[in-house]
Amino acid sequence: MSQSSPAPATAAVDVVDIALDARSYPILIGQGESLWQQAEVHFPKGTSAVIVTNTTVAPLYLQALRQRLERHYPKVLEVALPDGEQHKNWQTLNLIFDALLGNGADRKAVLYALGGGVIGDMTGFAAACYMRGVPFVQVPTTLLAQVDSSVGGKTAINHPLGKNMIGAFYQPRLVVCDIDTLRTLPTEQLSAGLAEVIKYGPIYDMEFFAWLEANVERLVAQDADALRHAIRRSCEIKAAVVSADETEAGLREILNFGHTFGHAIEAGMGYGAWLHGHAVAAGMVLATRLSQKLGHLPDADFLARLVPLLQKAGLPIEAPRLDPARNAERYLELMRVDKKTQGGAIRFVLIAPPGQAHTEKVADAVAAQLLDECIA
Amino acid sequence: MSQSSPAPATAAVDVVDIALDARSYPILIGQGESLWQQAEVHFPKGTSAVIVTNTTVAPLYLQALRQRLERHYPKVLEVALPDGEQHKNWQTLNLIFDALLGNGADRKAVLYALGGGVIGDMTGFAAACYMRGVPFVQVPTTLLAQVDSSVGGKTAINHPLGKNMIGAFYQPRLVVCDIDTLRTLPTEQLSAGLAEVIKYGPIYDMEFFAWLEANVERLVAQDADALRHAIRRSCEIKAAVVSADETEAGLREILNFGHTFGHAIEAGMGYGAWLHGHAVAAGMVLATRLSQKLGHLPDADFLARLVPLLQKAGLPIEAPRLDPARNAERYLELMRVDKKTQGGAIRFVLIAPPGQAHTEKVADAVAAQLLDECIA
Repeated sequence: MSQSSPAPATAAVDVVDIALDARSYPILIGQGESLWQQAEVHFPKGTSAVIVTNTTVAPLYLQALRQRLERHYPKVLEVALPDGEQHKNWQTLNLIFDALLGNGADRKAVLYALGGGVIGDMTGFAAACYMRGVPFVQVPTTLLAQVDSSVGGKTAINHPLGKNMIGAFYQPRLVVCDIDTLRTLPTEQLSAGLAEVIKYGPIYDMEFFAWLEANVERLVAQDADALRHAIRRSCEIKAAVVSADETEAGLREILNFGHTFGHAIEAGMGYGAWLHGHAVAAGMVLATRLSQKLGHLPDADFLARLVPLLQKAGLPIEAPRLDPARNAERYLELMRVDKKTQGGAIRFVLIAPPGQAHTEKVADAVAAQLLDECIA
Repeated sequence: MSQSSPAPATAAVDVVDIALDARSYPILIGQGESLWQQAEVHFPKGTSAVIVTNTTVAPLYLQALRQRLERHYPKVLEVALPDGEQHKNWQTLNLIFDALLGNGADRKAVLYALGGGVIGDMTGFAAACYMRGVPFVQVPTTLLAQVDSSVGGKTAINHPLGKNMIGAFYQPRLVVCDIDTLRTLPTEQLSAGLAEVIKYGPIYDMEFFAWLEANVERLVAQDADALRHAIRRSCEIKAAVVSADETEAGLREILNFGHTFGHAIEAGMGYGAWLHGHAVAAGMVLATRLSQKLGHLPDADFLARLVPLLQKAGLPIEAPRLDPARNAERYLELMRVDKKTQGGAIRFVLIAPPGQAHTEKVADAVAAQLLDECIA
């Protein structure tokens, strides 16, 4: 299917079921009428629907979603937040609460998150907290949100001292991944999403990694079938990991491969300066090198495959210097607020072998040495 | 046991077990060494303990708790918030997050709520949100908090447009009700707690109501045995109701007897002007009269018992006028934001007969008429 041809009404829709007992929900992946007809069956009942979106996405997709929701809910409200990671804070979250309370939205209101990961995280957290919990639906419009933030129930806002520090585990009732929405996505945002897709190879499935190596050009060119496969497989892997560990007690931490370094890059450069996916890409290179340094990867083969794949996906492979004089110290400082830290020791997700990941405490001196070696 | 004698180390400790599968926890009720020795067994493991209290309670009980926790945790931090319902908002909540992040508290930190209902609600909500959830322990120092807010896992902050609008259902790991802390409680605060104790009669247990009629003077005089019984029975009843309905889908709403009117009084008079328990007392009289008006209480016997019991407990029985001209309309406006409201219709907890409660939609005109009849 070419990028410009509209999807036929009978186009394939993939379904990934997230099994979490009473909080189970389906992820639908597809495009056009066939996707949305299937989605409507799963819309939660309610007295009103509240679409939370941002000022970039609103002009593109708000009207279509509103029309669809008006057939199902007596009242449809909308809130358009300012766009960007730098707005993922309490002040912006409060705009959602103001709109809900100002419009008399009750406990039977259903929130719809229409946008990328920031909108999904904030809407999910607002739904978790509003009157101690109302249902919500994710309609992710970026590749990153479709493969990552729509699975696992992690919702949060940032605090000036750390990313995603204030949040909740809260599951959506439904996720609708409409591939058509990726057509308006800037190239660097598509790349950012591919970073999280690529991540699933080294931590879980090297067969998928090989498929990505063979198909990365199709993904970059937004081939719909390739995208649907990549999204489905990413969701399946994440679902398998999350189902085994809903509240991040252990296994789930492997999803943070590349993220310990990545979060430090994001915070150190100032939220919004580096895209999350770009920071994760550079972080995965560092985490792979750290795995090597600790003797987990006897030969350098995997790094020699990871780096060109990231490059073909349009992703950075080198981490930035965060401080002219004391760069490693600055990284360590920022990484110490990571949620995986226990008793002051930084814990990294490492791979051994590629396709299997684990979490490990690493001495500050070892991490500092690696940072000095890798960052010019 | 007289009010002034210190509790012997062997004094009785009552235990109420809250059964919620993986989130079950004990409530310990007693005083002195015997209480705290038993409590220590249940302290959750962690890398640090963070005591959240307020500037009124801190000088009284902070030091003793800190010393006890220092035996169990490598690090003990403290945060003293400003005292009062008017501070139960995001700005104050953020002081907890600032202290946690500023001191490098990780996911293995355990929060201790030392104070009344406001401290319990805010600490619980902070624990629910910090890094998406850390353990917390309730050490309620008011009667209201001991009988009510420490059971049920309701945590929240207020929004300018409504009380407890932003929050979470989040269970503590342990609740320690130290009756000795009630000795420093102002009389009107003890009365406010008795309002919630008395509530359990009409909604669930008229035998307990009869016991309260016989023992209200002992309770007001802070007889330790009487207090321990009243607290235990209140917790047991609340536990029975909450266990059956953790997330307030139905039955649990009966705990809101008197609260629909009560919340309107608190909001209408300005948070902090009326104590919550006082507003609930006046609200219970209105809710009983509404039950009568709707034909649920064929004779007036119960009102004739409720009013003198509230009076002996030092509680108000008359609701205030909220607006000189359009008083009923103002009440209705404020009650409509209640979380029980569905599709615009206000739902009240009514009794029929005393000892059994249910929730019922009531037409605005009927509620308005009642308000006009009852409020001078």
